[in-house]
Amino acid sequence: MDSPRAELVPNAMRARRLHVDTYQEPVVYMREDCAVCRSEGFAAQARVQIDFAGRRVVATLNVVHGDWLAVGDAGLSESAWGALLPTEGATLIVSQAPALDSLSHVRAKIYGHRLGPDALAAVIADVASGRYSDIHLAAFITACAGDRLDVDETIALTKAMIGVGERLDWGRERVVDKHCVGGLPGNRTTLLVVPIVAACGLVMPKTSSRAITSPAGTADTMEVLAPVELATPAVRRVVERTGGCIVWGGSVGLSPADDILIRVERPLDLDSEGQLVASVLSKKAAAGSTHVLVDLPVGPTAKVRSIEAGRALGRRLVAVGTAIGLKVALRFTDGLQPVGRGIGPALEARDVLAVLRGTPDAPQDLRERALRLAADILEFGGAAQSGHGPALAEQVLADGRAWTRFQAICEAQGGMRAIPAAAHRHVITAARAGQVGAVDNRLLARAAKLAGAPRAPAAGVEVHVRIGETVRVGQPLFTLHAQAPGELDYAQRFVASRPPIFAISEAA
Amino acid sequence: MDSPRAELVPNAMRARRLHVDTYQEPVVYMREDCAVCRSEGFAAQARVQIDFAGRRVVATLNVVHGDWLAVGDAGLSESAWGALLPTEGATLIVSQAPALDSLSHVRAKIYGHRLGPDALAAVIADVASGRYSDIHLAAFITACAGDRLDVDETIALTKAMIGVGERLDWGRERVVDKHCVGGLPGNRTTLLVVPIVAACGLVMPKTSSRAITSPAGTADTMEVLAPVELATPAVRRVVERTGGCIVWGGSVGLSPADDILIRVERPLDLDSEGQLVASVLSKKAAAGSTHVLVDLPVGPTAKVRSIEAGRALGRRLVAVGTAIGLKVALRFTDGLQPVGRGIGPALEARDVLAVLRGTPDAPQDLRERALRLAADILEFGGAAQSGHGPALAEQVLADGRAWTRFQAICEAQGGMRAIPAAAHRHVITAARAGQVGAVDNRLLARAAKLAGAPRAPAAGVEVHVRIGETVRVGQPLFTLHAQAPGELDYAQRFVASRPPIFAISEAA
Repeated sequence: MDSPRAELVPNAMRARRLHVDTYQEPVVYMREDCAVCRSEGFAAQARVQIDFAGRRVVATLNVVHGDWLAVGDAGLSESAWGALLPTEGATLIVSQAPALDSLSHVRAKIYGHRLGPDALAAVIADVASGRYSDIHLAAFITACAGDRLDVDETIALTKAMIGVGERLDWGRERVVDKHCVGGLPGNRTTLLVVPIVAACGLVMPKTSSRAITSPAGTADTMEVLAPVELATPAVRRVVERTGGCIVWGGSVGLSPADDILIRVERPLDLDSEGQLVASVLSKKAAAGSTHVLVDLPVGPTAKVRSIEAGRALGRRLVAVGTAIGLKVALRFTDGLQPVGRGIGPALEARDVLAVLRGTPDAPQDLRERALRLAADILEFGGAAQSGHGPALAEQVLADGRAWTRFQAICEAQGGMRAIPAAAHRHVITAARAGQVGAVDNRLLARAAKLAGAPRAPAAGVEVHVRIGETVRVGQPLFTLHAQAPGELDYAQRFVASRPPIFAISEAA
Repeated sequence: MDSPRAELVPNAMRARRLHVDTYQEPVVYMREDCAVCRSEGFAAQARVQIDFAGRRVVATLNVVHGDWLAVGDAGLSESAWGALLPTEGATLIVSQAPALDSLSHVRAKIYGHRLGPDALAAVIADVASGRYSDIHLAAFITACAGDRLDVDETIALTKAMIGVGERLDWGRERVVDKHCVGGLPGNRTTLLVVPIVAACGLVMPKTSSRAITSPAGTADTMEVLAPVELATPAVRRVVERTGGCIVWGGSVGLSPADDILIRVERPLDLDSEGQLVASVLSKKAAAGSTHVLVDLPVGPTAKVRSIEAGRALGRRLVAVGTAIGLKVALRFTDGLQPVGRGIGPALEARDVLAVLRGTPDAPQDLRERALRLAADILEFGGAAQSGHGPALAEQVLADGRAWTRFQAICEAQGGMRAIPAAAHRHVITAARAGQVGAVDNRLLARAAKLAGAPRAPAAGVEVHVRIGETVRVGQPLFTLHAQAPGELDYAQRFVASRPPIFAISEAA
């Protein structure tokens, strides 16, 4: 026993794991009549600091009046337990969390003031160390949203986010990377670009995010096919062996502040331009990338709604990239409709494998987008001369080298997995005959989320028609996939209660 | 048994009271392997709707992986339990909360758009029915803060807040009221103004708030002396008997949306002009007031920092008041230093009683401010002719009629109480000799809060000197009062770590 006995130490309490998932916010449960609550004057919602064996977490207090928790026990949520890693009954030191001075900067931002590098560094340091509650995080995110961060603030925020995490160094002059600003369901090109580019000799250590507001992030889709939660040494081995990887950035700890901000952005269904740029580029810089291609799909219901908005976002990406020593190239792509057929982790993974294997039913739009981006990177990264990227990319995909390389990456990440199928399905059909004129990507994404994606990997939407196609009455437009009947029902009710997701005009 | 048996109803679960205080946010705890979690695909942080006997609450889900909760049990936090009022083991119906469409208006506000009456009404209806999580509430409050609500939006917000609550009608042509915009520690004039004005025959049914960001709200201070959580019929009886009351607005349910917003404003230490006006005037209108005097203390460390800012706020109060049919008068007062000696519920109550009883040590500044405001209301409310208010107020206070009336109000509200004293104290003394030049009200208020006010009623700060006074080295400046040693220690460390709260200049 190297921990002192509880009764001999002021503010000592016994650790008790409650196995409660509070979605990342650390919560501690304590009896109102315990010695620490009484001596410290703690009440519900107090922010308390908990120390164990050199580790520390700040948690929100929930006060227990019943007797299911013993006096002297500090019941920990899973997130608090994971941060402290005590043993059951170990002695924790519980005290008042120090005053959160950096909140004054958040208030200044709310009142419209610019924040300097020191202020943003102070906020991000407190965010990364878990001192902000969900309420504080929501206020910071909201205060920065709606274009309230200028370029200098975005640079400072990006540097602050890089500063609180680990930073990889590959010992190479050029390390390529790509990012898609998202908003286009099914646009899962990364799983194709990485093996093509790696097969051509470039190094592309891709860390991806999980979904923030979409039905699937790249990491969610890749996880259907292989493990993605790899620690840094494992990532290094994968990249050394195969030239590439597709892993979840969160487990590498490259931008821990960003991972915390994302947990609150999700329920708000909000990510702002400044935070988007800081989030993307801080992760790229921390991953040790030098050349980053950014894919910006533009369309009325995509994340970037107009070419003007795309150019403004692109300028900010390039400016912030330059300030932190990253070369950033842009590629504007068509964002009118979903890419491929699947929306949701497993359904998207199915499309990716079809393209890699070159099966006859492989979605051509996904294939072409991936080739265009891979070609850009091959040229930008020096693996192909200007103008020769497209032919090289096409060749490597067509002759199976990309498929072989993708399998090697999956094996190196822990082994390739079979794609799951959803237990419950419902087909939505055309109510009238005519031509498909437009698709509401936002409603489609929301339907996929309500069906359970990305949490339920097999859930989502399978799209059967494309813009310009002529359909007859009763022809399937899309299929809802769900793993739970309640979710299928919920997604179905949502679709029924909204305007048609596919606009169908009378055939001429 | 009027509730159907759990196993026969889809989505049925057994109610279990967990006696957990989550500070008002309703939380439900369910096993990950229970039928409802599996069929609905629920995961942590999901928003779920719980129905029982015609009552409904939307709660945040915490998922339990351990076996301290039985499969099929829905463990309820105190706030969720209080909203549903089931019996232990009763059958609840748990389902997915419907999509929160009004969040699109919150996002529009974040992006800088104006919100019309329908949008604000939709947001406030969802807030009042408990459908917003703390994260959503924090985003809405932040989006409206920093002067981002214009006058029309403030009027619409005020009307929306009145619309979702009860509205009292006193059957009188004139019902007077007062409000102080706060920010000045110890400014507890309401407890003097109400008995003076009521003793002169006016009707003043005062509903007050608890502290939002201050060490004590009027309701917190009054609660030291008498019960303040009275339901509407009881309030009506008190006012009919005594002409006045001083009760907590929250228990009257006059502006339920405001009470919910306040729970998130507090940890953010934030209240914005638009929300302040909507909060104040919605409560006044709902309380059935017709004539409202607003006290605006102005000072560099008060809530209103300059006379210009005070005039802008005053204009908005008058404009919004006119739009909702309220006559609003303004009184700008000195906001340079705390009023009276006490800061914190019990210490302020002590000052109030000294003034009412006319004891020799009664704080004169508190007495004079209360007389000034009472005089204004006597004239504004028609109980004194123009210019005769001050003499009438002075007379009623000096001859004991106000004290008698105050005791009558306390008795009518449930009986007068003795003032508690704090168990732990620490005196802060002057480090140098000289003249007291300025007081940092914000730091002083924060010290009082850290000492435990308002949650611990006896906690707070007792001020011993005033601006302009000459002090010698070692002379007591103020005393920290706390009910818990941990809190005294914490407040002491805070004071020691900050610049001096009282600026002392070298005596000339």
